[in-house]
Amino acid sequence: MQKLYQSLDSLYEEIVQLRRYLHQYPELSFREVHTPRYIAEYHEKLGHRVRTNVGGNGVVAYLEGGKPGPTVAMRADFDALPIKEETGLSFQSKNDGVMHACGHDAHTATLLGLAKALNGIKEELKGTVVFIHQHAEEVIPGGAKSMIEDGCLNGVDVIFGTHIQAQTPLGEVNYRVGPLQAAADFFEIDIQGKGGHGAYPHQTKDSIVVGSQLVNNLQQIVSRKVDPLHSAVVSVGSFEAVNANNVIADTAELKGTVRTFDEGVRDLIEAEMKRVVSATCELSGAKGILHYRRGYPTLDNHEKETLFVAELAKDIPGVEVVQESPQVMGGEDFSYYLQQVKGTFFFTGAEIKGREESYPHHHPKFDIDERGLLIAAKVLGRATLTYMQEHSKSEKVVEL
Amino acid sequence: MQKLYQSLDSLYEEIVQLRRYLHQYPELSFREVHTPRYIAEYHEKLGHRVRTNVGGNGVVAYLEGGKPGPTVAMRADFDALPIKEETGLSFQSKNDGVMHACGHDAHTATLLGLAKALNGIKEELKGTVVFIHQHAEEVIPGGAKSMIEDGCLNGVDVIFGTHIQAQTPLGEVNYRVGPLQAAADFFEIDIQGKGGHGAYPHQTKDSIVVGSQLVNNLQQIVSRKVDPLHSAVVSVGSFEAVNANNVIADTAELKGTVRTFDEGVRDLIEAEMKRVVSATCELSGAKGILHYRRGYPTLDNHEKETLFVAELAKDIPGVEVVQESPQVMGGEDFSYYLQQVKGTFFFTGAEIKGREESYPHHHPKFDIDERGLLIAAKVLGRATLTYMQEHSKSEKVVEL
Amino acid sequence: MQKLYQSLDSLYEEIVQLRRYLHQYPELSFREVHTPRYIAEYHEKLGHRVRTNVGGNGVVAYLEGGKPGPTVAMRADFDALPIKEETGLSFQSKNDGVMHACGHDAHTATLLGLAKALNGIKEELKGTVVFIHQHAEEVIPGGAKSMIEDGCLNGVDVIFGTHIQAQTPLGEVNYRVGPLQAAADFFEIDIQGKGGHGAYPHQTKDSIVVGSQLVNNLQQIVSRKVDPLHSAVVSVGSFEAVNANNVIADTAELKGTVRTFDEGVRDLIEAEMKRVVSATCELSGAKGILHYRRGYPTLDNHEKETLFVAELAKDIPGVEVVQESPQVMGGEDFSYYLQQVKGTFFFTGAEIKGREESYPHHHPKFDIDERGLLIAAKVLGRATLTYMQEHSKSEKVVEL
Amino acid sequence: MQKLYQSLDSLYEEIVQLRRYLHQYPELSFREVHTPRYIAEYHEKLGHRVRTNVGGNGVVAYLEGGKPGPTVAMRADFDALPIKEETGLSFQSKNDGVMHACGHDAHTATLLGLAKALNGIKEELKGTVVFIHQHAEEVIPGGAKSMIEDGCLNGVDVIFGTHIQAQTPLGEVNYRVGPLQAAADFFEIDIQGKGGHGAYPHQTKDSIVVGSQLVNNLQQIVSRKVDPLHSAVVSVGSFEAVNANNVIADTAELKGTVRTFDEGVRDLIEAEMKRVVSATCELSGAKGILHYRRGYPTLDNHEKETLFVAELAKDIPGVEVVQESPQVMGGEDFSYYLQQVKGTFFFTGAEIKGREESYPHHHPKFDIDERGLLIAAKVLGRATLTYMQEHSKSEKVVEL
Repeated sequence: MQKLYQSLDSLYEEIVQLRRYLHQYPELSFREVHTPRYIAEYHEKLGHRVRTNVGGNGVVAYLEGGKPGPTVAMRADFDALPIKEETGLSFQSKNDGVMHACGHDAHTATLLGLAKALNGIKEELKGTVVFIHQHAEEVIPGGAKSMIEDGCLNGVDVIFGTHIQAQTPLGEVNYRVGPLQAAADFFEIDIQGKGGHGAYPHQTKDSIVVGSQLVNNLQQIVSRKVDPLHSAVVSVGSFEAVNANNVIADTAELKGTVRTFDEGVRDLIEAEMKRVVSATCELSGAKGILHYRRGYPTLDNHEKETLFVAELAKDIPGVEVVQESPQVMGGEDFSYYLQQVKGTFFFTGAEIKGREESYPHHHPKFDIDERGLLIAAKVLGRATLTYMQEHSKSEKVVEL
Repeated sequence: MQKLYQSLDSLYEEIVQLRRYLHQYPELSFREVHTPRYIAEYHEKLGHRVRTNVGGNGVVAYLEGGKPGPTVAMRADFDALPIKEETGLSFQSKNDGVMHACGHDAHTATLLGLAKALNGIKEELKGTVVFIHQHAEEVIPGGAKSMIEDGCLNGVDVIFGTHIQAQTPLGEVNYRVGPLQAAADFFEIDIQGKGGHGAYPHQTKDSIVVGSQLVNNLQQIVSRKVDPLHSAVVSVGSFEAVNANNVIADTAELKGTVRTFDEGVRDLIEAEMKRVVSATCELSGAKGILHYRRGYPTLDNHEKETLFVAELAKDIPGVEVVQESPQVMGGEDFSYYLQQVKGTFFFTGAEIKGREESYPHHHPKFDIDERGLLIAAKVLGRATLTYMQEHSKSEKVVEL
Repeated sequence: MQKLYQSLDSLYEEIVQLRRYLHQYPELSFREVHTPRYIAEYHEKLGHRVRTNVGGNGVVAYLEGGKPGPTVAMRADFDALPIKEETGLSFQSKNDGVMHACGHDAHTATLLGLAKALNGIKEELKGTVVFIHQHAEEVIPGGAKSMIEDGCLNGVDVIFGTHIQAQTPLGEVNYRVGPLQAAADFFEIDIQGKGGHGAYPHQTKDSIVVGSQLVNNLQQIVSRKVDPLHSAVVSVGSFEAVNANNVIADTAELKGTVRTFDEGVRDLIEAEMKRVVSATCELSGAKGILHYRRGYPTLDNHEKETLFVAELAKDIPGVEVVQESPQVMGGEDFSYYLQQVKGTFFFTGAEIKGREESYPHHHPKFDIDERGLLIAAKVLGRATLTYMQEHSKSEKVVEL
Repeated sequence: MQKLYQSLDSLYEEIVQLRRYLHQYPELSFREVHTPRYIAEYHEKLGHRVRTNVGGNGVVAYLEGGKPGPTVAMRADFDALPIKEETGLSFQSKNDGVMHACGHDAHTATLLGLAKALNGIKEELKGTVVFIHQHAEEVIPGGAKSMIEDGCLNGVDVIFGTHIQAQTPLGEVNYRVGPLQAAADFFEIDIQGKGGHGAYPHQTKDSIVVGSQLVNNLQQIVSRKVDPLHSAVVSVGSFEAVNANNVIADTAELKGTVRTFDEGVRDLIEAEMKRVVSATCELSGAKGILHYRRGYPTLDNHEKETLFVAELAKDIPGVEVVQESPQVMGGEDFSYYLQQVKGTFFFTGAEIKGREESYPHHHPKFDIDERGLLIAAKVLGRATLTYMQEHSKSEKVVEL
């Protein structure tokens, strides 16, 4: 293991350069062109077998170890966000209005650096490493689903992934068995009332009144219909019925999001929303259509693999704290991989110490301590090697 | 009186041409340039004394009768609306996106034609006629208020006015003693909550929830706070909080209108709205600002003058029905004149018979039966002459 | 007419004693036993033909005039209220918990005194007088409907009635053409949710939440569905869901009243209530039943008869002010008579001057200035005689 | 340990008889007289030192072991509920309307039987056993608080307790580290509006409208103000404003309960309720008073002691499943003990197999499989002995 750590330490500068290069050329979800080509070339130079355009813009690279053993996948996402960067960094985004404000540049650089390190010890590797470079994590339906459909998990025994955290102290690794990140669904509600003059409400079906009742009635799904021991959120983020003062609105559109950790609760909320939309519109004789779009499912970490990573993370140089993470209401399409194969997704701290203010992910001033990338690489690398070690043995025993 | 009727009958073609000319060159409220100049020139040719730029773009013309008597004012408004005409008439609007869709062209043509007719019998006129050509009736604060401040009612004893009605049968004249048209006020409510991510409502103050509660709470002003024997409307016409699905709205803006017939109710509603906005925002710790703008006051017809016009209208050629009008929730700044001097405002039917569909005022296909203009001119003309007749006599008696 | 006035003046003491006697022995609606017997005996002593148990506990007496002419009915109601009297008067109620707190004792005494006075001039009477003594005005379905069905209006040409007003100055007579008193309907709403423990709302259908939404949603019928030019009230007076703190209510019952002046609005409100109850319950999957009971219809005074009474009231001794009454939201089953025959219902002032506080009808300290009874008798009496005079003449002319 | 198990096995019949005796004579919370006397006598017969009237009606008995060691407390509650029993059991309640419908008879019998068993091996006991027999668990403020104030925990090192579960299979023992049972608070809200007649809402402040808005607004505390990762319930169980149909309610009273697991959330909800009550009343100019009564705090099991019991329970005869319990929204005043000393509270399954229907706690047909008592006694007994064994050793080392 020391060999891996030393290799990664010596690659640290390169990993930082990779991240900074990617940071300058961010690309929006589903529109990634340059980035996947860059990734593919990097792996090709290492001699890895590479598949491009996997499920869209995804890239998958394969490193065959010198010895037999299991197949371990790792995933890094590489899309960026429609945010205008305000960091003022020397390697600030050169694509105006697009920014790596969620750390996907870091994920990619980490995985590339780790690929090089593992490539350096490939003869000793007991099994195969699959590097899944995923496009389009930020926008549903996401890239994971289509990459899986395109075979990126074929033959994979286990998968590991991490998210760099800008507001978690450097040196922390946070894990959680079971549901870690929420299912994130989206909805639009179109209300068709009957417009008219503001002075004659009795001739109309007031879409703003209907929409307002709807916003209030939707609150009661969480407060009355969901088991209080389950977490759930129903938020209306947009109410659009823009008119002159003296009219009654003909239509209104609501948009929002639903977050859950339990499939039963998710189904319940969708069903209750249908009921509430229908009954609320009926109050005024208006018509309402609910468009409910399921986003990423709950990210549900496997117990054994999660505790496995949590345990080995404790001894890694630079890791000071390994602790259970609280649940997170944000979604992550790594959840799809975990529906297919065993594995875990964990958080790696990378907060910049001493900064006046700490900026969250998706903020124009988002930034990270790059030493977090080295820690992430070591945890993923050690997990890969240890898993191979443990499972190649047992495999062999089984083979005999 | 027969002389006046005959004169108007012979002027009918000219009145129609005047109206059609004006119809082709409509001008928006407060931006009238060509129209007032045209009006002023018409009066000047008749030899009337003319004041221009009265209270803005208003025009006032004076016809001095040959005999002593009272001063009778009549008013016609001349602004148009930001509507794209779809009538397909030969004299359709030539100012794209602007249309005389409320009949102000008709009012003006009527008054100009009547001016010519009265001019023809000026030697017999017992008193002075004041022709008030008002700009900007469609948009508060309206032109009436500033024209009054600029002296247009100086010396006036009584004022008459009418509105041509596209959905009232030709031959009808409708009057009402007391409140005829509602006070029309306007409001905007700015809600300042605290935005955030849709998955973390507890870190926010949800402006859409606040706005929705507000819409509902405002309903109770009419249902619980206003004396049920009084008419009142509070309508929210616009709800603007347009965002992505997965946010909590930082701000929301509501816009709407209030209609009342009683000053006490009007004051009550404004006060209750302040209370409701404040308390509703306090529910969520948000901040709300109510901008309440008083529009035209209630149009309150004087009893004696109204019954006077109603009575004499019955005998006018072409008038078939004279009846009490129901109250109207729409506003009209003729109300300001009636706060200063005695008078009345009535409705003159001008519906086009046999048309497949009847289009309301402010509709792109709005049109009228032009014979209504002749009727309006006769009622106004007869009212003027009769009033002069009755009041010059009594005046003389007093003088003796 | 002077003869009638003098006769009534001399009967004033007796009228007062009649009223005070009745005041001591009030009887609840539909349970009147003693009062109708007392009334019947009074008329029998005068030699009037009397029908008892008319439509229940009603009494109708007939006075045949000496000359031919029309049939004029007058009505007085005689039931009392379930109120514990607190006036401390010497003639205070002797039936504990029952009180003439609405002046029906006064109405009855007035009509009995007037009967005696008219009896004294019966030879000169041109027509027939019908004295309708009605039971049960305070509680729907009221006595009027069944008395009419039992023939109390047979042959009647016109009907007059009055209500004594404790908060209107003595000397005032108030009339109104058209709708004077509102239609008063009543409703109960039974909500059947699904009870449970307060800590487990998701296993329940919360009847209190449903009932609360319903109260709010009902507000919007008046604010959005009823033409603002029409008066209407929907009030929920009772919300009953009384339980321990830690349960979810299984059921809730709402009770309330609806007031309207227009039959179309009345129908609309009943229909909208059905819709709102159904849709609001559907929001939570609960069940709701609306029991809507129509009470008295709008009391709609006939124009000619109303102005007739208003005009003649002006000259009656003791009458100082005759003016138009505002509309009244309270119901009155005199409305049923006016649906069958011409007539009018007016208000007679009887406020006690100089009293520290003025107590409204239905108050335990309600009282009146008894001189109001004399005024009421004179107005009713003069209306009867004048009507007979005018209508017997014209009848005769027809007969010739 | 086998000795203890055998002793308990041989005492099983006595434990059952104890439970059935207690079941026949249930006593309401804070009114226990007979039960504590019975308990005290039982311990006195065993020669235990006994304190009675501890913090009210509580009983504490002390068994001094023959060897030095720690002080281990166990608690059983003994109050019953105001429920009319409908089990039809031979040992059904003889106190009409009072029933041991929550298993406190079982808790007490278990602890008494265990006391006898431990007494039989007292010479070998390494330390002191404290038997805390608590009154009044069902009704706040509960008996635990005052018993602690009266010294029942003096010198105690650790405390164990269990609740028998009628709907958990026999053979199950369920534990949970950290918050197991919710804080259960109670509230009443008095609304003072201004009453009046239902036909004149504008003269009133409608308490039913205010109360209804309040019920709706309270929903948004859970849906918008509480972190969705925390569990919380705000339920209104009672809405009392009972009047005739035709009035506007002068007052309304709401009653309800609040459940939380986190003190911060608890504080937040109380603060938000104050805000919501105040602002909602302000909407109508009414006055509202919130009476918020804190009930039992969250029952927060100590990690080490909980895992200690969970581990040793696995090997106990009759225990088939030991698993983590989900959280429970119901309150339990065992929580007060755990605020003072280390310890744990766990659930012991006692479902009657093969019964047609399973009745929950607090149901008139509630019943249990009495073999659950034996299991509970063994788990508590083994925990006591093992704890003493482990802690007397270490104590001795310290002492040397």
